[in-house]
Amino acid sequence: MIGTEIENLINLLSKMPGIGPRSARRMALSLLRQKESLMIPLSDALSTAAVAIKTCGTCNNLDTISPCSVCNNALRDRSVICVVEQIADLWALERTGSYRGLYHVLGGTLSALDGVGPEDLSIPSLVARSGAEDVTEIIIALNATIDGQTTAHYLTNSLRNSSVTVTRLAHGVPIGGELDYLDDGTITTALKSRSVF
Amino acid sequence: MIGTEIENLINLLSKMPGIGPRSARRMALSLLRQKESLMIPLSDALSTAAVAIKTCGTCNNLDTISPCSVCNNALRDRSVICVVEQIADLWALERTGSYRGLYHVLGGTLSALDGVGPEDLSIPSLVARSGAEDVTEIIIALNATIDGQTTAHYLTNSLRNSSVTVTRLAHGVPIGGELDYLDDGTITTALKSRSVF
Repeated sequence: MIGTEIENLINLLSKMPGIGPRSARRMALSLLRQKESLMIPLSDALSTAAVAIKTCGTCNNLDTISPCSVCNNALRDRSVICVVEQIADLWALERTGSYRGLYHVLGGTLSALDGVGPEDLSIPSLVARSGAEDVTEIIIALNATIDGQTTAHYLTNSLRNSSVTVTRLAHGVPIGGELDYLDDGTITTALKSRSVF
Repeated sequence: MIGTEIENLINLLSKMPGIGPRSARRMALSLLRQKESLMIPLSDALSTAAVAIKTCGTCNNLDTISPCSVCNNALRDRSVICVVEQIADLWALERTGSYRGLYHVLGGTLSALDGVGPEDLSIPSLVARSGAEDVTEIIIALNATIDGQTTAHYLTNSLRNSSVTVTRLAHGVPIGGELDYLDDGTITTALKSRSVF
């Protein structure tokens, strides 16, 4: 005997990624226990963000302004563009605080299986941006998956005619990683790319 | 370079049970991709439910009305009250469709470790309800945990002076359960409570 309002809420919560019906019920109950401190603020944050947040016309980042605050920032290095698959990857790079260039969010990877072709990703706009005279380097920071690497090869090919240097992230042992838990491919690559101590 | 609006949203999402910062970021991105179909409806559902849903003054269920639609339902058996720990347990029993009596949500279990005493649970109101003349049975449907069973014993004691029959859920092998995966306690109980085939 769950009321329509709660049922509707649970239904919508369970549409979020990784949330099944059981988690959604747990979330709904937790929200109803914290109406003032969580439920109403969350409702407000959702409606505010839904109105305020848009996609940057240059790099496809999400922000309240377009061009976004990264593209707009005069302090950032405009000669480097880092290509990422998703906005989550852009956020991951920003969290490190070690990259000061611009970004380009592809919106996914090429995938024959899922029917994602070059026209479904923002590849043409990347090629166009690479032609700008201040751009000297494109860093390909796609995931080290089959699809990511296929897309990286396609991008390198697409950027062949421009004058930019195309680079990619180093492969190797993650910091804190234990050799015994790493796959053979990573160890082989780390061995091949070894450097003088 | 995440904007304040997104950061605030992620922050609130990560306050929900079982949601860490990574899941919250994933949820925020998924919501921003589905503004019309998910983000705005969810915002509306949250604010509607926050206003409409209240706690039933009789059984502590959540509903738009108090007494709730279970307590109000003339078709339900008013002679039986099923005592549960949380509203999620009430929902679980309602989903089965096999119980037609009333409920009483305790709001937790007694726990010396967490400092939850009898006065923190709705035990006095249960004792009061058990004194009503149409009530003949109290089913204790608390979880089969240490705290749940301690609370069950305390309840049985509190209800000793009333004329109701106090019953509890049967212990045994879950439907579809394999003996090899069950704990010894459950198997022992199931063996002791065996019935003629």
